[in-house]
Amino acid sequence: MRELKVELGERSYPIYIGEGLLQEAAAYFKKHQISLKSPLLIITDEHVAPRYLESLEGNLREAGFTVASAVVPAGESSKSLSMLESLVTKALEAGLDRKSTIVALGGGVVGDLAGFVAASYMRGVKFVQIPTTILAHDSSVGGKVAVNHPLAKNIIGAFHQPEMVLYDLNTLQSLPPRDVSAGLSEVVKHGLIWDAEFTAWCEENADRLLALEPDALGYALYKGCSVKAAVVSKDERENDLRAILNLGHTIGHALEAVAGYGELLHGEAISIGMIGSARLGLRYGAPEDVYTTTKRALSKVGLPVKLPEHFDVDAIMNAMMHDKKFSESTMVFVVPTEIGKVEIKKDVQTAWVREIVEQLKLEA
Amino acid sequence: MRELKVELGERSYPIYIGEGLLQEAAAYFKKHQISLKSPLLIITDEHVAPRYLESLEGNLREAGFTVASAVVPAGESSKSLSMLESLVTKALEAGLDRKSTIVALGGGVVGDLAGFVAASYMRGVKFVQIPTTILAHDSSVGGKVAVNHPLAKNIIGAFHQPEMVLYDLNTLQSLPPRDVSAGLSEVVKHGLIWDAEFTAWCEENADRLLALEPDALGYALYKGCSVKAAVVSKDERENDLRAILNLGHTIGHALEAVAGYGELLHGEAISIGMIGSARLGLRYGAPEDVYTTTKRALSKVGLPVKLPEHFDVDAIMNAMMHDKKFSESTMVFVVPTEIGKVEIKKDVQTAWVREIVEQLKLEA
Repeated sequence: MRELKVELGERSYPIYIGEGLLQEAAAYFKKHQISLKSPLLIITDEHVAPRYLESLEGNLREAGFTVASAVVPAGESSKSLSMLESLVTKALEAGLDRKSTIVALGGGVVGDLAGFVAASYMRGVKFVQIPTTILAHDSSVGGKVAVNHPLAKNIIGAFHQPEMVLYDLNTLQSLPPRDVSAGLSEVVKHGLIWDAEFTAWCEENADRLLALEPDALGYALYKGCSVKAAVVSKDERENDLRAILNLGHTIGHALEAVAGYGELLHGEAISIGMIGSARLGLRYGAPEDVYTTTKRALSKVGLPVKLPEHFDVDAIMNAMMHDKKFSESTMVFVVPTEIGKVEIKKDVQTAWVREIVEQLKLEA
Repeated sequence: MRELKVELGERSYPIYIGEGLLQEAAAYFKKHQISLKSPLLIITDEHVAPRYLESLEGNLREAGFTVASAVVPAGESSKSLSMLESLVTKALEAGLDRKSTIVALGGGVVGDLAGFVAASYMRGVKFVQIPTTILAHDSSVGGKVAVNHPLAKNIIGAFHQPEMVLYDLNTLQSLPPRDVSAGLSEVVKHGLIWDAEFTAWCEENADRLLALEPDALGYALYKGCSVKAAVVSKDERENDLRAILNLGHTIGHALEAVAGYGELLHGEAISIGMIGSARLGLRYGAPEDVYTTTKRALSKVGLPVKLPEHFDVDAIMNAMMHDKKFSESTMVFVVPTEIGKVEIKKDVQTAWVREIVEQLKLEA
């Protein structure tokens, strides 16, 4: 079992990573003074519930916790204000009080949604995250929680840090291969922005990661979370440094916006985006290996590095221009300067970006 | 002009109280680094808008601020998640970004609603309060913001401190007499729980307060805010001390729940509730003047101290029993021990409370 502390002063919390933690949940809950008296509410989705909900509920109830559960539809559409209202109904009916805890059992959507319920129910109650995807390693650090508005994603939310994160590697064994690769995208990103050694390790251990070997996976999640924790500790509310976490995301988000539903997973889109950022790095004089290593590392964990031919470059550029930090002629980008280091460039020529997006279709 | 600092570490903020501050709003906004570049959104209600919105907008625009406004229906029903969604639509359409500010122009409902928009829009933007009621002196200190859920009031919210509070005494001149008295209820309460001298001052100056004499009113709001600020500074998130602010509220909330719509204003209900608390104090051995002074002070500012005959005691008791801190035989109450001092009693006999509620109908 690995343990990592996210350092945020009085809001610091540990991330536990290991096999079988779900079966020991009650012990961790007790260790962290989760109330035995006030009911707790587990929020999960219809994909995760059949696999893990009963066992988590059973483990907690046996230890004396009062447990209610809510199962929401899987997918982004559950991150809505109307779902928030339903979950608050559930919380009230189950008698949750100010000393209660909301538990997120699932991936990023469940974490974001349950986290915002925890942030706003009675103006904030305790929150525990039990991620069941690799991608959720990213959202489990930093306390960003939110729901969507019809006009914008994640626009209604809060910063609400959990009491702890319980990462049971066994829950990752059932992930489909495509989700494994997509989840590893943010893991590789954390190496690229912060830790050259870890990037090299990812390359070397790509096969073990894809095979979901618990020890390799545990180490990768530990390192990925560590990088994010280091960044977030220095800039909890995204004033400055935290922006480096957006490597690959400017192009990536635009690709997600333009792609048909389900065509590109988030991790896949930012993988292609990171290739674009690496090419941009070259323009700023970064050494060639910034590009070659980025591409090799992402390829090895099974991620796309090429933009599918049918994507419309104009549409992608338009999607990017919605970012208010951008003017017509310049854009803001996170740009790698060497492996493990990035800089924020505020004067990136829009023309360069267009050329690079076009080039992304030609990647070998 | 009086200035009061609410001490909350890095979330500290000033409350400015004086005449004509609305006409100087832009200067205060600039003093507090409200962004000139990012648009701001004023949220107000249909009663306040015709009186003050145009002049506030004009003052800010003239100084170079980009201003959008949203006018919501007056009254508690605007504190809903669907109104939050509409206001976020408005904020997005007006182009508000992370450096924008939400301004609450109005009473407690507008403050709670706009405050929660500010707390959750893009995970939190700046917030400025411009209260236009006496009652809002209470909610302008402490950062509690919230909307209602069909099953419970104020159940979805946050702690979100404003950048500053601008209290323009001129905006209070148009308040109907009943709202003046109801607003003074919380002012008197702040004396009763914390400051015997201020309680005496309220009695002596009741006529000046009811006449809305700016100097008396300014002093009363300053003192009322000071007491609340002192309490909140020591207990921002209501773990302990902050509970003393609930003097009169247990019975008061029950009266509000049982009364027909509009029959009792919040301040009137807690006035009667404070008489009940004072009577409870006597049972715990407090000197007689705890009761006589409480009653005299509230009467002098025009508040009811007697429960109307037609209220059903069973219904009131039932409404109170919804509080989960209460068992069948004991309840938790804030009880005055002398004027300016209260204690939290956790073992109040339910039978005593019933007797006292019955007695409230017999007050002279």
